[in-house]
Amino acid sequence: MVDIEQYIRNITDFPKRGIQFKDITPLLASREATDACVQQFIDLLDNQKVDKVVAIEARGFFFGMLLAQRLNVGFIPIRKPGKLPYKTLKESYDLEYGTDSLEIHEDAIKKGDLVLLHDDVLATGGTAKAACNLIERLGAEVVQCNFLIELEFLNGIRKLPNQNVKSLLKY
Amino acid sequence: MVDIEQYIRNITDFPKRGIQFKDITPLLASREATDACVQQFIDLLDNQKVDKVVAIEARGFFFGMLLAQRLNVGFIPIRKPGKLPYKTLKESYDLEYGTDSLEIHEDAIKKGDLVLLHDDVLATGGTAKAACNLIERLGAEVVQCNFLIELEFLNGIRKLPNQNVKSLLKY
Repeated sequence: MVDIEQYIRNITDFPKRGIQFKDITPLLASREATDACVQQFIDLLDNQKVDKVVAIEARGFFFGMLLAQRLNVGFIPIRKPGKLPYKTLKESYDLEYGTDSLEIHEDAIKKGDLVLLHDDVLATGGTAKAACNLIERLGAEVVQCNFLIELEFLNGIRKLPNQNVKSLLKY
Repeated sequence: MVDIEQYIRNITDFPKRGIQFKDITPLLASREATDACVQQFIDLLDNQKVDKVVAIEARGFFFGMLLAQRLNVGFIPIRKPGKLPYKTLKESYDLEYGTDSLEIHEDAIKKGDLVLLHDDVLATGGTAKAACNLIERLGAEVVQCNFLIELEFLNGIRKLPNQNVKSLLKY
């Protein structure tokens, strides 16, 4: 049994003073730890049928891609504005100061698709909520939102009251 | 036999007028096409031993992660400045106007490691060259640079004269 938590590196004062950043790169550098995470994500799905894996730029792409492969379904990226070249839907969300946006290709998901949404970290929940909105605006259903890490003290789950939220590690 | 080229969507005038952008998202949305690409990348390696897969933010992460898994080795991201939280090496490269930089964690690769470098597109070669420099400054060897797409008319391969460059699709 791999203890995945030992592969998370704490970085003090990043990206700014007072924040302890959870660095997942040691985990990605370990095949054993990465494989263990994929298996734990699969276990959390509990045989739920999934048609598409949607993941959020950029760190969501790591496990999003592995989960799509493992589930034998297509992978759909949600990206920052201006990165996706085809017709997109956009959803804005609040930051500490100002707002930011995410986009999805409007043909990426079909009405009725069962979607697994993945990102590496659930923090304040703003990006995850915007991503769920994009998926639901396309007529699809988010069957689970999964995260490698949930920062419980930021209470991001409060922004996702109607979602099935799962995380491998909680802080 | 999957014709992966039919999964690449041409987008006219993106990101600016006169450029035809190669959109790989339809390929990522197809499990069959994605799996075919991974197999073709593996075939191009021709049993070359690899210790680490290094991939460049953000679209390099898609197949970089799948290749690391398939080769049963660790995955190392190269990112835009300010994204990697631990101690980094930085390498700058020229853009059409101005310069940009890439970073790698200085403990991500060990001296003597055999590295497969991956990115989605080889264009002018600036980012690939900077990535090779980062890997080599850490004392590792780039055994192959592979790309989903090579834009041959931009002649990026000229910036990588000492590298073993392979691409699945050439335009």
